[in-house]
Amino acid sequence: MVVLDLVGTFVFALSGATVGVKHRLDLFGVLVLSFAVGSFGGIARDVLIGAVPPGGIADWRYVAICAAAGLVTFYWHPFVDRFRSPVLLLDAAGLALFAVVGTTKALDHGLGPVPAVLLGTLTGIGGGMVRDVLVSEVPAVLRAEIYAVAALAGGAVVVLARSLGLPAAVGYGGGALLCFGLRYVAIRRGWQLPVAGARRHRDH
Amino acid sequence: MVVLDLVGTFVFALSGATVGVKHRLDLFGVLVLSFAVGSFGGIARDVLIGAVPPGGIADWRYVAICAAAGLVTFYWHPFVDRFRSPVLLLDAAGLALFAVVGTTKALDHGLGPVPAVLLGTLTGIGGGMVRDVLVSEVPAVLRAEIYAVAALAGGAVVVLARSLGLPAAVGYGGGALLCFGLRYVAIRRGWQLPVAGARRHRDH
Amino acid sequence: MVVLDLVGTFVFALSGATVGVKHRLDLFGVLVLSFAVGSFGGIARDVLIGAVPPGGIADWRYVAICAAAGLVTFYWHPFVDRFRSPVLLLDAAGLALFAVVGTTKALDHGLGPVPAVLLGTLTGIGGGMVRDVLVSEVPAVLRAEIYAVAALAGGAVVVLARSLGLPAAVGYGGGALLCFGLRYVAIRRGWQLPVAGARRHRDH
Repeated sequence: MVVLDLVGTFVFALSGATVGVKHRLDLFGVLVLSFAVGSFGGIARDVLIGAVPPGGIADWRYVAICAAAGLVTFYWHPFVDRFRSPVLLLDAAGLALFAVVGTTKALDHGLGPVPAVLLGTLTGIGGGMVRDVLVSEVPAVLRAEIYAVAALAGGAVVVLARSLGLPAAVGYGGGALLCFGLRYVAIRRGWQLPVAGARRHRDH
Repeated sequence: MVVLDLVGTFVFALSGATVGVKHRLDLFGVLVLSFAVGSFGGIARDVLIGAVPPGGIADWRYVAICAAAGLVTFYWHPFVDRFRSPVLLLDAAGLALFAVVGTTKALDHGLGPVPAVLLGTLTGIGGGMVRDVLVSEVPAVLRAEIYAVAALAGGAVVVLARSLGLPAAVGYGGGALLCFGLRYVAIRRGWQLPVAGARRHRDH
Repeated sequence: MVVLDLVGTFVFALSGATVGVKHRLDLFGVLVLSFAVGSFGGIARDVLIGAVPPGGIADWRYVAICAAAGLVTFYWHPFVDRFRSPVLLLDAAGLALFAVVGTTKALDHGLGPVPAVLLGTLTGIGGGMVRDVLVSEVPAVLRAEIYAVAALAGGAVVVLARSLGLPAAVGYGGGALLCFGLRYVAIRRGWQLPVAGARRHRDH
C-alpha cells in the first residue's frame, strides 16, 4: 500500500510541478507546488483519521519523491510536455491511486464503509483542489465531468472487495482501474454530467 | 445540538449548491461544493479540538444531508432562486447555527470562554470561506458588513447563558437569533463598519 | 520560544491587516485577516504534530496579539505604510521567526531533523499563503525568489545547532537571521532562482 501511495504522491507532485512550470514559477515555487499537491491529500486524510504526524511530512520518502517529481519536471519538462494534456492524465492516475489507498487506510483505522469511501475520495481530490486554488483557478473537481464520481466508484470497489473477503490486490487493482478508466474515458469522449442551467433550458 | 448542527450543515450545503448552480457546475460539482461548504466548518472545529474522525465525515447523517441539499438545489433551483438573495440568507442562517453549536462543542471539550467563542466563529465562517475560495472570490467574511462580529455575538450569548446557569436552549435560541438578526439587519439596511480608506479620507 | 512565536504572530498579523486595508476591507474584515494570517501557520503546525487544541486558538495571548495588530494597522496604517513595501518586510520577519519556532516545536515533539525543518518551513509559509489565497492572488511563496529556501535554511540552522549541542538561543538567532537576511537580500537585489521557461529559452 505504501508503494501505491508513493506512486500516487509522485504523479500528483508531477501534475503540481507541471502546472508550476506552465505558470513560469521558479525552481522553489515548482518544488513547493510539487510538495503541496503531492502531499495534501494524504496529509488531510491522516489528520482526519487522527494519524499524526502525517506520513506526508514525517516519512522522508514522501518528501524525497515530491522533490524528485519537482526536479524532473523542472529540468525535463519539454519531455513531460510531449504527452497530450499531461496534467489531466497524471491527475487521473493520482486520483485513482489515492482513492483506493485513502479508502483502505480509513477502513484500517476502523471507519465504516461510507466514511471510508468518502475519505478516499477526499484524499483523491485534495491534491488537485490545492493545486488549482493556489494558482487562483476554480478546482477541476468542480468543473470536470466524472471526477469525484470516479473516485467514489474506485473507493466503493475497495470496500466491496474487502466485504466479499477478496484479496486486497483485487480491490486495489479493480478500484484503481475503474477510477482511472472512468476518468480517462470521460476526458477522451468529453462525457459530461447534466448541468442545472441546461436542465432549466430544457424545462422552459 | 446534533439537530441544530444538521440544520446548519443543510443550509450551508444549500448555499454551496446554489453558488455551484450559479457557476454552472455539473451535478457532481454541485454535490462536492455542497459537501465542502456544509461540512468544512464542523470538520475544522473537530480537528482543532481533537475530535477525530470528525462527525462531518464519520457520521452518515451529515453526508446524507449534504447530498440531499445538493440534489434539492440542483433539481429545484428555480424554486430556491425565487427567494431574494438566497445565498445571503442561507449563509446567515448557517452562520448563526454553527456559531452557537461550535461554541457549545468547544466548551464541552474543556476550552475556555474566549477560545470557545472564537472556535464557534471559525466554525461559522469556515463553510462560507471555503465556498468563496473554491470559486475564486474574496470570502464574504472579509468584505461584508457585520459578519464575523455577528458570529462572535452569537457565541458570546451561549457562553454568557452557560455561565449564568441558564438552560442550554436559552443560550442556543438567544445566540442564534442575535447572530442571524444582526446579519439580517446588516444585509437589509446596508449597515457597514468603517473602512480604513474612508477614515483616511476624513482625516485629511 | 513563546515570545518569538508571539512576535512572529504579530508581524504576520500586521502583514495580513495591511493587505486587508489595501483591499479596503472594513474593520472586522481586517481583524479576520489578521487572525487568519497570524495564526494559520502555528495552527497548521500544531494540528500536524497532534498538539490540539492549538495555541493559536486556546491561548488568549495569540488572539489578543492578532487583534492588536489588526487594530493598530486599521487606525494607524498611514504610519505603517510609510515603510517601503511593509508587507514584504513584515512577511520576511514572520517567515524567519516561524521557521525557527516551528522547527523547534517539531523537534520537541519527537520528529526527525528533515520533517522538523519541513514543518518549520510550512509553519513559516502558511500564514502568507492563506493571506494571498484569501484575496485571490497566487501566493508569494510560489512566485517569489528565495522564499521557501530561506525558511528551509533557517530551520536547518536550528537543527544543526541542536545536534552540535549549542545553546538554543544560538540556533534561534542564527536561523532567524539567516532566513531574514536571505529574504531581505533577495528582495533588495532582486535575486531570482532559475525559471523553467528561461531555461528552455537558453536550450534552443
